[in-house]
Amino acid sequence: MTSPIRVTVWGENFHEQSEQDRAGMAERYPDGMHGAIANGLTELLGESVTVMIATQDQPEHGLAEDVLNTTDVLTWWGHATHATVDDVVVDRVQERVLGGMGLLALHSAHFSKIFRRLMGTTCSLAWRNSSDTELVWSVNPAHPITVGVPQPILINDHEMYGEFFDIPAPDELIFISTFSGGEVFRSGCCWRRGKGKVFYFSPGDQHYPIYHHPDIKRVLANAVLWAQPENVVDLDPPSVVNSPTPHFDSRDLADGVRS
Amino acid sequence: MTSPIRVTVWGENFHEQSEQDRAGMAERYPDGMHGAIANGLTELLGESVTVMIATQDQPEHGLAEDVLNTTDVLTWWGHATHATVDDVVVDRVQERVLGGMGLLALHSAHFSKIFRRLMGTTCSLAWRNSSDTELVWSVNPAHPITVGVPQPILINDHEMYGEFFDIPAPDELIFISTFSGGEVFRSGCCWRRGKGKVFYFSPGDQHYPIYHHPDIKRVLANAVLWAQPENVVDLDPPSVVNSPTPHFDSRDLADGVRS
Amino acid sequence: MTSPIRVTVWGENFHEQSEQDRAGMAERYPDGMHGAIANGLTELLGESVTVMIATQDQPEHGLAEDVLNTTDVLTWWGHATHATVDDVVVDRVQERVLGGMGLLALHSAHFSKIFRRLMGTTCSLAWRNSSDTELVWSVNPAHPITVGVPQPILINDHEMYGEFFDIPAPDELIFISTFSGGEVFRSGCCWRRGKGKVFYFSPGDQHYPIYHHPDIKRVLANAVLWAQPENVVDLDPPSVVNSPTPHFDSRDLADGVRS
Amino acid sequence: MTSPIRVTVWGENFHEQSEQDRAGMAERYPDGMHGAIANGLTELLGESVTVMIATQDQPEHGLAEDVLNTTDVLTWWGHATHATVDDVVVDRVQERVLGGMGLLALHSAHFSKIFRRLMGTTCSLAWRNSSDTELVWSVNPAHPITVGVPQPILINDHEMYGEFFDIPAPDELIFISTFSGGEVFRSGCCWRRGKGKVFYFSPGDQHYPIYHHPDIKRVLANAVLWAQPENVVDLDPPSVVNSPTPHFDSRDLADGVRS
Repeated sequence: MTSPIRVTVWGENFHEQSEQDRAGMAERYPDGMHGAIANGLTELLGESVTVMIATQDQPEHGLAEDVLNTTDVLTWWGHATHATVDDVVVDRVQERVLGGMGLLALHSAHFSKIFRRLMGTTCSLAWRNSSDTELVWSVNPAHPITVGVPQPILINDHEMYGEFFDIPAPDELIFISTFSGGEVFRSGCCWRRGKGKVFYFSPGDQHYPIYHHPDIKRVLANAVLWAQPENVVDLDPPSVVNSPTPHFDSRDLADGVRS
Repeated sequence: MTSPIRVTVWGENFHEQSEQDRAGMAERYPDGMHGAIANGLTELLGESVTVMIATQDQPEHGLAEDVLNTTDVLTWWGHATHATVDDVVVDRVQERVLGGMGLLALHSAHFSKIFRRLMGTTCSLAWRNSSDTELVWSVNPAHPITVGVPQPILINDHEMYGEFFDIPAPDELIFISTFSGGEVFRSGCCWRRGKGKVFYFSPGDQHYPIYHHPDIKRVLANAVLWAQPENVVDLDPPSVVNSPTPHFDSRDLADGVRS
Repeated sequence: MTSPIRVTVWGENFHEQSEQDRAGMAERYPDGMHGAIANGLTELLGESVTVMIATQDQPEHGLAEDVLNTTDVLTWWGHATHATVDDVVVDRVQERVLGGMGLLALHSAHFSKIFRRLMGTTCSLAWRNSSDTELVWSVNPAHPITVGVPQPILINDHEMYGEFFDIPAPDELIFISTFSGGEVFRSGCCWRRGKGKVFYFSPGDQHYPIYHHPDIKRVLANAVLWAQPENVVDLDPPSVVNSPTPHFDSRDLADGVRS
Repeated sequence: MTSPIRVTVWGENFHEQSEQDRAGMAERYPDGMHGAIANGLTELLGESVTVMIATQDQPEHGLAEDVLNTTDVLTWWGHATHATVDDVVVDRVQERVLGGMGLLALHSAHFSKIFRRLMGTTCSLAWRNSSDTELVWSVNPAHPITVGVPQPILINDHEMYGEFFDIPAPDELIFISTFSGGEVFRSGCCWRRGKGKVFYFSPGDQHYPIYHHPDIKRVLANAVLWAQPENVVDLDPPSVVNSPTPHFDSRDLADGVRS
């Protein structure tokens, strides 16, 4: 693939604007969390990507048909306002993922409508917000998502996400995190759905400057490369195929003329 | 588990009553397809099950809360009227599956709301209705769903369902079918979702007396045994757990008194 | 299955007898580690099992053909003398597992010849023996191996086993352990191989009285129930089948007389 | 990866030379089967590969250490003389696969020592040599191994390989074949082992000119691209890591200075 991968970084853009959080957010994320994610991808992937930003407060949440139709990989960060994401947009994103678009669901996006739709489960988990140390361990060392990533990634301060994480068994389990409180979490998980690929990655809370962490930026860049569409000739999800003609021709079989 | 497994056999009950189909259905399925399925389970599993029937034309589609709360395994056959199944009932069934109830999705139930919800994909497939011979091959010979089943099961006349079947990769692939037209289909697939188990099994079209076939009855009986709840102490799906207390006690760690 | 499950508990029986270790072993494991494991199974499973012991120092390592031919589930603990296990016995055990016998590979048996044979990988891991606290978390809460097991299991003192653990991706991942040093380990893993089932479970070092721990005993008892042969009519591993006769009869296909 | 992928095509080179087969082989495969496979890769992959040939009749079967140390992907075709492949060479290939080299096991290589080593099972199957029509169906339409491949691939004449195929459940199932006799076979299967990737692909019998088939050549070319080492910084398989230093610093935990 010689043309750049078209990435749309989607952000809820709530904490960035809320009275309670905006001062801290402005310090940690002067360009918003979506801005930090987008900057990291551009920094690491250079001309092999073109990165756009879309946010929930835009018309159609910034995800009009023409945007999705020109997006190869969509990253999704949401937390406080999952419920107000329009079902019509969720339908559209789901259809596009099944049609081949990659999706990176980040941190609290475990509870986003789109991730729960694609998983079919509650996506619930255990949780504590008390500034744990998190270590992110690879259990799939030759997987492309782990290229250039240390064993383990050290995150000095982070919210704890723990098991049981109610997801379908991942097609490929990439990362497992431990926390200084003793908990464990399947923090990097891959699935195929339809013609598309989905990666869930848990590091990335709004209260911590996680998306400036060089190893986290590396994981997200690797994941964009992994999730880009392969072998996709159209944008459509799989559909019913009427096959009126049998593939084995019974006369030939009867005549033994198959050779 | 010494108390009987409580099975609810759910039927759409449309072809049985439609002007176009009811004569043929009455010949093939005098008790309805749901009746045939229920009879097969009772015949093969005897006192280890109690079998109830529920149909779409009943209030709440026969699936009121008290019914689901006393159901260990639900079998689902639908075809013509998926769209008119009430979303409230679908929500309830999904919640109950995630809470531990087994679900057997049969034949055209690949397109039922509940199955698509649990899969997250389109569940589309290839299709031809021209009286193919179907052979159902086991690729998991020591799996409990294959107990007492010949290799292959021979179905003289059946509708063709073929690949690509747009489902998440099964946690366990049990059966693959071939058709005299040359097509192939992953016809028996297992998934875990939440605390529950899901089995999809494709043989079972309304135009063919499949549910009287002794090997098909055997597969369904085996699947009920497999899908029954294990290790389920309540009816609730997994939910968020707030874990305020770290598991590693830092003072003890610092003092090195763990030994 | 109404007849008891026939379990053979295999022990290396080295540390129990070595000059260096025997005093400590006699305190921790007066009946040997194999004795402790056998006692736990008998205590928890009662009349549903008959438990035998076999050790490496016996003729044919206690695993003569007639022993294996009457064993439904074999548990394997070895550590210091893997290399001196006779390849003929390893061949025999492998053949029997592929023929349907369950195998529980315990702790340092990750490096046993039989486990490496069945995995095809190095089965290497990270390691530290410094009396860590280990927490064993379930990531598969409705799996039969987790029945009656707390979330998490707490082991106050144990050797650390950490990732990367070089195994094939488990068919079912059941437990993940964290350690007070921050490491993580896929500590409970299920695979099917041939007609048999394999469970690897890491807790169980000779320096710690792990096999007296009630939750560990529970896991082993659950695993014996899970690993027992299902749907196995003979002791033989899968073998080549010559199929001279096609299943689709071409004349019938040509005549369209399939119905 | 800008430098070419170094492919070594390994051939048993027995039928090419045996009195019984050499006339037919010379017609079907004037350059040997290994020559046909190598030519196909060069034709389709051009400068992105450098292709070498090694055969069993060479010293060290053509797989001396320096050859394997400069091989990114090894393709393996063997049939009549599996038993005479030197175990020392098999050890070396296994170690190299676990260290990151890709392996394509072709057709009757299901019974090669190296494939059975990596699988841990008998790798037995059902079989009939009576010139069946084979259809190769993709069940993973967006997988890179299926790029540019029709649904299904039609092979007019081929030996039948059928289920039960005694392999570990594939990490990714790509192709399933049907045969005009009605049989089914998981004909394209992916596994990760250690740091390496393994692809088994069944089409390719010595009695049929399969390796000149454009779609089969395409699959092999795709598989080479898929199997090339990713994220591999050395040639070594995973090994034991002694981790004397805990990752969580207990003083810091005690002081609560993590925040």
